[in-house]
Amino acid sequence: VAAGPTTAAERELRRLLGPEAVRPGSERGYLSDATASRGLVGHAEAVAIPQNPDQVAATLHWCYDHNVPLTTRGGGTGLAGGAVPQGGVVLSLERLRAVHELRPELWRMHVQAGLPTADVARLAREWGLYYPPDPGAAEQSQIGGNIATNAGGPHSFKYGVTGHWVTGLELVLAPGERVVVGGPGRKDVAGYDLRSLLVGSEGTLGIITAAWLRLVPAPEAQLPILATYPTVEAGAEALSAVLGSGVVPATIEFLDTGAMAAAAGSFPGPPPGDAALTLIVEADGTTMEAERQREELKASMQPGSQRLHAPAGRGEIEALWRWRSGVSPAVTAQRGGKLSEDIVVPAERLVEAIVATQEIGRRHGLRACSWGHAGDGNLHSTFMIDPTQGAEIERAEAAAQALFALAIELGGSVSAEHGLGLVKSGTLERQWEPAAVRMHEEIKRVFDPKGLLNPGKKRARVS
Amino acid sequence: VAAGPTTAAERELRRLLGPEAVRPGSERGYLSDATASRGLVGHAEAVAIPQNPDQVAATLHWCYDHNVPLTTRGGGTGLAGGAVPQGGVVLSLERLRAVHELRPELWRMHVQAGLPTADVARLAREWGLYYPPDPGAAEQSQIGGNIATNAGGPHSFKYGVTGHWVTGLELVLAPGERVVVGGPGRKDVAGYDLRSLLVGSEGTLGIITAAWLRLVPAPEAQLPILATYPTVEAGAEALSAVLGSGVVPATIEFLDTGAMAAAAGSFPGPPPGDAALTLIVEADGTTMEAERQREELKASMQPGSQRLHAPAGRGEIEALWRWRSGVSPAVTAQRGGKLSEDIVVPAERLVEAIVATQEIGRRHGLRACSWGHAGDGNLHSTFMIDPTQGAEIERAEAAAQALFALAIELGGSVSAEHGLGLVKSGTLERQWEPAAVRMHEEIKRVFDPKGLLNPGKKRARVS
Repeated sequence: VAAGPTTAAERELRRLLGPEAVRPGSERGYLSDATASRGLVGHAEAVAIPQNPDQVAATLHWCYDHNVPLTTRGGGTGLAGGAVPQGGVVLSLERLRAVHELRPELWRMHVQAGLPTADVARLAREWGLYYPPDPGAAEQSQIGGNIATNAGGPHSFKYGVTGHWVTGLELVLAPGERVVVGGPGRKDVAGYDLRSLLVGSEGTLGIITAAWLRLVPAPEAQLPILATYPTVEAGAEALSAVLGSGVVPATIEFLDTGAMAAAAGSFPGPPPGDAALTLIVEADGTTMEAERQREELKASMQPGSQRLHAPAGRGEIEALWRWRSGVSPAVTAQRGGKLSEDIVVPAERLVEAIVATQEIGRRHGLRACSWGHAGDGNLHSTFMIDPTQGAEIERAEAAAQALFALAIELGGSVSAEHGLGLVKSGTLERQWEPAAVRMHEEIKRVFDPKGLLNPGKKRARVS
Repeated sequence: VAAGPTTAAERELRRLLGPEAVRPGSERGYLSDATASRGLVGHAEAVAIPQNPDQVAATLHWCYDHNVPLTTRGGGTGLAGGAVPQGGVVLSLERLRAVHELRPELWRMHVQAGLPTADVARLAREWGLYYPPDPGAAEQSQIGGNIATNAGGPHSFKYGVTGHWVTGLELVLAPGERVVVGGPGRKDVAGYDLRSLLVGSEGTLGIITAAWLRLVPAPEAQLPILATYPTVEAGAEALSAVLGSGVVPATIEFLDTGAMAAAAGSFPGPPPGDAALTLIVEADGTTMEAERQREELKASMQPGSQRLHAPAGRGEIEALWRWRSGVSPAVTAQRGGKLSEDIVVPAERLVEAIVATQEIGRRHGLRACSWGHAGDGNLHSTFMIDPTQGAEIERAEAAAQALFALAIELGGSVSAEHGLGLVKSGTLERQWEPAAVRMHEEIKRVFDPKGLLNPGKKRARVS
């Protein structure tokens, strides 16, 4: 007794792809991402769930023929509204999760875009290899979405962001052509770097259907140290000492006082107490080398600290990182919602940005905090809100604008790893010079002359 | 008694930039690069040598106003004719060699494009830091040219190619606008990745005038091992064993029998003897860690080897790498000239490509050899010629075409790190699908609508 198609898009796509590959545009699970906690929900006429890349191409072809917008969707864990459709067709890659090739002896794999990121990491580990990028929500997020946003994560400090691990892409380009750029090889300068151009393009230039990923032998040991500091300045001095230690840490994470307060309740170990700044720095390598590095890092982090916590044993270490992954939901839980941005500043301006985030919150009558990737100068600057209170959302949006102005003024960027999506669309013109903005816009026109690919997202200008 | 300007371009640029910033287009030092050994010399109407980026912008502006082609030039060490002018103005960046900022405590520097690559590496080393990309001819080549070709080198296996170390670029875009993309920050996804698009674009999309470079703490020790094998297959097995050892070597280099024969005379140590394949694998890290890794690598490389050479002490190690840098000139010296390409294949096809290079040489009546970056599947496949013999150059060019066909057939690329330049211009359409070729060409039109930036280079099609 299922109801029949309710829109022309749904009806025609059912005919094209088969009924099992199409769902109604009203299905709420396909209309939002992690920005739902700020109240963002989109709308669509149909959801296409192709079984193979030819069906992806057919879907884009149909959309291009009929001037229908298409929003590609991965795991829906994005933090910028990049997957929130503004009408038209949602294309979900959830069924494209094949592992085409796994060559552990050559340190690489070739996988479809819908494979969950955690599966990529697990497959690598099973063969003694390591896929380092570790954005949040790895179980739910998909490798294609990670590539489309060039996702980061704690271990990007030493190992680089997602794009650094991608050697080739299978794409569908408008009006519906399947194209390969790059491949299993690690070097290629024959053409302009279309691969890097598609990485981080948020579904606005083309659809990623598969990727070749590079891997490395897994480090035998990964040994984190957590240290707390009574002042932001004392923490910043420790951070400088870490950078001067000669060790290349795998991660240099931080939490400010508000982020730690939100997450302290679930801390795996004795309560961390009242800290203005917390650092999580990790040593890795062979067990012997990681232990030696950890001692050097501890010596750098000790001066001025309140407490040093170096978990021992796999269980304790995994618990610490699980706890770290839970910081974002713990902050959300404070008031039920949040506006969380991912500004980045030159590393020497990090303290200013941490302090300014709190100050911007106060000015807008909102609780504010930040945490993130200190080594990369990358803050998740966050304003806590009750998502049922429209006035709070409005104040938080004004606060976010002040935050973007700050990032630009400090010589940074409005987005380090989440993308512009919908919520930061139009901010680029504040950050880039007119000639660069023009190139951004002309590249969009080259790849998507009808402007149908994820419309409204990653725009350079407001208008 | 210097003669006056002989062309309108020279006369007008002298007026615009001052006489000290302009030289006659006939100056031979500005008309060729390392492809001179295959007989390639270009022609120009004037050479501009700007003192600052505003003069770079003024030069491009003048060229755009007057429809005059402009070929940007770094150190002139390119191996694809990318800097060989086809008329118009040569713009040399040799005077833009300032170090704007060196922040060792933040692992970064900001330098002008004309700074020699060896100076970048030396500056880093003075502060205990490391700039890993190490293309050949580092003393003469310039960082801007390295970025414009996305140059590689032996240490790219572990550390990545030049682009991986560039976080920001100062550019001049047509028709003469100064633009910054990126900066000192390590992460930024606010706009499309224009930085990566310009990296490797060979002066055909814009002019790079300065760059922000990332650095890392220098490894305390770098310990190479050279091993020789009686058959290519035995060497390939050792290569597999190295990849399976769990160690991430800093380099995995190879020389085939012809390359070793050419370079054996200057080998720093007892003569290496007759080998079908030679590998150079390096361990790095703290002294203790590098020594441990070296032992593991030696154990992997021992089976089937003729000889293992692990130089001890800084002097011996530097001598080995100096010798390795001399392989290319040693091969040139065999017959006075060479055609050397930089094809890349998936690592599992390396042996096929080594054998096929020799076979293609035989078929064209030329001595052939290869060496290069085995870990990246990157061969410098080379045909030795007497550059005064036109017929040999012609046969070598036919052989190069066969080589490109091979690279594409094996799933690789015609260029891993030298670029298309002039000598491979037009090969891209054999390698990429039509839709990707179209994107390549449209991007060129977006950045250079008049087609004046390094015309004839990095073209996708022959016509």
